[in-house]
Amino acid sequence: MVRRRRMVRDYDPYRPVPPEVRDRLLAHAVRAPSAGFSQGWGFLVLETAEERGRFWTATAPPPPARPDRWLTRMRRAPLLVVALSHRDAYLDRYAEPDKGWTDRDEARWPVPYWDVDTGMAALLMLLTAVDEGLGACFFGVPAERVDAFRAAFGVPEGHRPVGVVSVGYPGSDDRRSPSLRRGRRPLDEVVHRGRW
Amino acid sequence: MVRRRRMVRDYDPYRPVPPEVRDRLLAHAVRAPSAGFSQGWGFLVLETAEERGRFWTATAPPPPARPDRWLTRMRRAPLLVVALSHRDAYLDRYAEPDKGWTDRDEARWPVPYWDVDTGMAALLMLLTAVDEGLGACFFGVPAERVDAFRAAFGVPEGHRPVGVVSVGYPGSDDRRSPSLRRGRRPLDEVVHRGRW
Repeated sequence: MVRRRRMVRDYDPYRPVPPEVRDRLLAHAVRAPSAGFSQGWGFLVLETAEERGRFWTATAPPPPARPDRWLTRMRRAPLLVVALSHRDAYLDRYAEPDKGWTDRDEARWPVPYWDVDTGMAALLMLLTAVDEGLGACFFGVPAERVDAFRAAFGVPEGHRPVGVVSVGYPGSDDRRSPSLRRGRRPLDEVVHRGRW
Repeated sequence: MVRRRRMVRDYDPYRPVPPEVRDRLLAHAVRAPSAGFSQGWGFLVLETAEERGRFWTATAPPPPARPDRWLTRMRRAPLLVVALSHRDAYLDRYAEPDKGWTDRDEARWPVPYWDVDTGMAALLMLLTAVDEGLGACFFGVPAERVDAFRAAFGVPEGHRPVGVVSVGYPGSDDRRSPSLRRGRRPLDEVVHRGRW
């Protein structure tokens, strides 16, 4: 499952994601770990053509950031799940008596675990899609479109889109990311044994 | 695999992690997705008693942040893999011609994908450990100990420990996190359909 996973960027627009697969994706998403079991995340599920169209209209960046053909194919995905992180849920959780960071100071956090945990939830959706014989892709909402995205779906200020998982049966015109030509970094370059 | 995964916080100190399992963990870690295939991550592998002792000495927080019994059990883990993110690799990657963010401005990033992607790599190690019949836990290095951790292992400034994966065969004294008593949030609370 781990080795078979790769991003799929074209979808068969005539084959919807079966409801039981969609439900399994979401059931697995919430099995991601979360610091202090904060579970400071939310998942916005967009399935109808109207909902998906509203998403693409609000968020699609102007060219040349993403060429039209990327968008043309990605728009065919019958299901989008936007994974959002909720920082305040973490600050609140760690202000509880058993944690005791009552100042709610974000500087106590070496890493924004609200984003990391939500990313893990997204990865579990990607892996589940592979396991079910579907394809999926993970991509971000451009910073300059986040406000428009929130407005389009009534998302409150405190919730941040960490990324979107598009899901569907792979289309015939799927293309590998040109970035892959860079090659995978060899293990002995990224792994340090005993010290850096 | 997804449903069986949970954090294991006690380990059998007499059963090391087989080298082929350790290698599979690392091979799977680098199969995580990364924005622009930046792969801005590093993995510090600590196996000998000396290496692991150095880690715990440098990073263990004073009580009562983590009770001694947490540390007593966690110290039995025969393998620690520290997953580190490298922000500059992402800023450099997105300044290349096909991305074109030549200003290297961090504000362009809606979310720190260097931390998110590295967290995904850590999750793949957690899942692989389960798949191999071992136990694992993911935990952070406290913000106030990051400098001491870097000094202990010669880690350069630009690399940030996103978290540590402890791995081993589960011990007999494993305890569930008290945080789990909070209960999992019901799906209909975290899932929003069509709009928030």
